[in-house]
Amino acid sequence: MVHNYSAGPCVLPQEVFEKAAESIRDYNGTGLSIIEMSHRSKDFVEVMDRARALVKELLNVPDGYTVLFLQGGASLGFYTSAINFMKNEGGVGAYVDTGSWSSKAIKEAKLLGDVRVLASSQDQNFNYIPKGYEVPTDVDYVHLTSNNTIFGTQFKSFPESKAPLLCDMSSDIFSKSVDVSKFDLIYAGAQKNMGPAGTTVYIVKDEALGKTGRAIPSMLDLQVHSSKDSMFNTPPVFAVYGSMLTMEWMKKEGGVSEMEKRNEMKAQLLYSEIDRNALFEGTTKAEDRSNMNPTFVLKDEEAHAARFDQMWKNANINGLKGHRSVGGYRASMYNALGIGSVRVLVEVMKELERTA
Amino acid sequence: MVHNYSAGPCVLPQEVFEKAAESIRDYNGTGLSIIEMSHRSKDFVEVMDRARALVKELLNVPDGYTVLFLQGGASLGFYTSAINFMKNEGGVGAYVDTGSWSSKAIKEAKLLGDVRVLASSQDQNFNYIPKGYEVPTDVDYVHLTSNNTIFGTQFKSFPESKAPLLCDMSSDIFSKSVDVSKFDLIYAGAQKNMGPAGTTVYIVKDEALGKTGRAIPSMLDLQVHSSKDSMFNTPPVFAVYGSMLTMEWMKKEGGVSEMEKRNEMKAQLLYSEIDRNALFEGTTKAEDRSNMNPTFVLKDEEAHAARFDQMWKNANINGLKGHRSVGGYRASMYNALGIGSVRVLVEVMKELERTA
Repeated sequence: MVHNYSAGPCVLPQEVFEKAAESIRDYNGTGLSIIEMSHRSKDFVEVMDRARALVKELLNVPDGYTVLFLQGGASLGFYTSAINFMKNEGGVGAYVDTGSWSSKAIKEAKLLGDVRVLASSQDQNFNYIPKGYEVPTDVDYVHLTSNNTIFGTQFKSFPESKAPLLCDMSSDIFSKSVDVSKFDLIYAGAQKNMGPAGTTVYIVKDEALGKTGRAIPSMLDLQVHSSKDSMFNTPPVFAVYGSMLTMEWMKKEGGVSEMEKRNEMKAQLLYSEIDRNALFEGTTKAEDRSNMNPTFVLKDEEAHAARFDQMWKNANINGLKGHRSVGGYRASMYNALGIGSVRVLVEVMKELERTA
Repeated sequence: MVHNYSAGPCVLPQEVFEKAAESIRDYNGTGLSIIEMSHRSKDFVEVMDRARALVKELLNVPDGYTVLFLQGGASLGFYTSAINFMKNEGGVGAYVDTGSWSSKAIKEAKLLGDVRVLASSQDQNFNYIPKGYEVPTDVDYVHLTSNNTIFGTQFKSFPESKAPLLCDMSSDIFSKSVDVSKFDLIYAGAQKNMGPAGTTVYIVKDEALGKTGRAIPSMLDLQVHSSKDSMFNTPPVFAVYGSMLTMEWMKKEGGVSEMEKRNEMKAQLLYSEIDRNALFEGTTKAEDRSNMNPTFVLKDEEAHAARFDQMWKNANINGLKGHRSVGGYRASMYNALGIGSVRVLVEVMKELERTA
C-alpha cells in the first residue's frame, strides 16, 4: 500500500477508484461508459444534480445559494470571482495575502480594477496568517485563501466582514465545518478533498450576482451558469462524477464533522511528532498550522536528509517533498488519507531519530 | 452492444475504456490511481507530453506551433480565441456564421471589439455552408466553425485568408486530414473524436501570439500556457489521459487518413440510404453534408415517427434524436463508431420502409 501525501491531485477513497473504474466500463448496467454518455442524458443529469445536492447537504448550504461545477481550476476562479463581484465603475477588491495563491488572485483582480491588500504575511515568507487588520466596508468584496498548501497555514477563524466575503477554499473544503452563510462566494478546485482534477465548485449567494454593471464573458458569468443548472456547456463529466462518488463516501463515513475529527487527529499526531522529535521543526507559526498540509524541515539537512528520504521512500510513502518555496517536507493529509498512513510517517521520523 | 450515436460526449474506442478503468485502479503498476498522482509527477508529465506529441504527429502539425490541453470547452474558447487575436485598439474579428456555435463565438467576441459577419446561412436555418463571400484582409482574424453538430453541415474546404485563420474544430478534428499551416489557431473540445469531456486542445502558431496589446487574464492567455508547457495550473488529468489513449488508438489503427477513409464510408452508407429511402430526407444541402453528424427527418412524421423510434431503440441504438433546432434525427458518427453500427441503423430504416 502506498501512503500518498501528494499535495493535489491527491489520495481519494479506494472505493471511489473501484466505482469509477467500473462505471468507465459500464455505467450502472446501461451498457455505456460514463464517459460516452450524452451530458444531457437522464443518467448524467442525475449525476450532476446529485453532486450539487451533496455539496449542499455536506456543507449545510443555506437557501439562496447555488452550487455550480465549472472548469478552469481555482486559477480561473481568481479572475472569475473578481469579475463577478468587482464593480465596473470604480471597483475595489480587498485581499488578504497569505501566499502564492492569494498573490495570484490579486494579480488577476488588478486587471479589472483597484486592489487593496489588507494584510500580508510576505514579510516572513507567509509562515503565518495575518490578524488584527481592519476590514473595510467601502470595497466590493474581501477575498481570502482559507488554506495555503505551499506554506502550510490555515485560517482557524474568518474575519467578520460587512462587504461580501469571497473565499478560495480549494485545499480545505469538506475538511471541516464552515458557516457558508458568512460568504457570498466560496470556490474550490476539486483535486484535494472533493474529487479528481478537472472541475471547480462554486457556491454562490444568488442575490449577490448581477450587480457589477459589467458585460461578463458567458463562461465566466456565474449567473449564466446558474440559470442553466451548471450545464451551460458540456461539463467535465468524469471529474463531476468522481466528485459525486467522493462526496457519497464522505456522507457514508459520517459527513464533514467526522472528516474534521479525523483530520484533527491526524494533524495532532504529526505535529506532536514534529515538535517532539529533536531532528525536525515546523515551518509555520503554531496557531496557524494547517491541518491539511503540515510543513516541516530537518534542523540539519546535510546530516539527515539523504537517509530520511531513503527511509520514507522505503516505507512506501509518496509525495512528501516540500514545495520549492519552503523546502523541506510537506505532508498533505487530505480527507482520504488514513491515520494509518500518518502512523507510518511518524514511525519513520522516530526511527530516524533513534538511529541518527 | 449499444450503438452509440450521441452527439458528444460520445462513443470512444472500447480499449480506451479498458485501459482507463485499469489506470484508475493502478496506473502502470505504480500502486497509485492515475487520478491520485501529482500532476508534477514524472508519470503524469509523461502523459501530458505524450498527448501533446500525439496531436502533432496525427495532424502533421508543422514546427512553430504549440499544442495545449486547457479547460473550459470550446465555449470558453470562443472568448479565448478572440482575446488572443483581437487588437485592443480598433480590433476587428471576422466570422462566418454557420450555426449555434458560430453565433455563440460571435457573441463573445463582441465583448472585446468589432465583429464583422462575412456570411451567414441563418436565412435557411443554417442548412448550408456559405460560399463566395469576400475574405477581408483588414481584420485581425477570420473565424470559422469547421463542422456544425446541430445543423449537420461541414466545411469541405476552407477559404483562403491573408488574415489569421482561427477555427473551432470541436466536432471534426482528427476525422480527416487538415492542413494546419493554414491556421493560426485551431481549438477543439475533446468530447467528440479526441477523448472524454473536460479538456480542450489548442493548436496555436507561436509567432501569432502576444500582438494584441491587451492585458489578458492568465488562464485565458495562450502565451502563459505555452510558456508553462500546458501546466500553468493543475490540468484536467483524466481527460488528458483519456485523450492520450484515444490518440494512441487512432495511431495504431492507421492515423487520421485511415479515420477519414472510414468516416467517408460510414457517411456514404447512411446518406445513400437517406436518399434512397422514400420515407426519409436529409435536412442539409448535399454538398455541405457533415460526415460527422448526418441530420435527417421523416417526410411524414405523424405516420412513422412512433414506430421508427421504437424500432431503433429495439435495435440498441442510442442518441439518435435530433437537436430541437432541427428536429428529426441526427446520427453522430465519430471516429470510434464502427461501420457495423451504421449498418444496423440502415437496416432499421430499410425495415421501416418495407413494413410501412
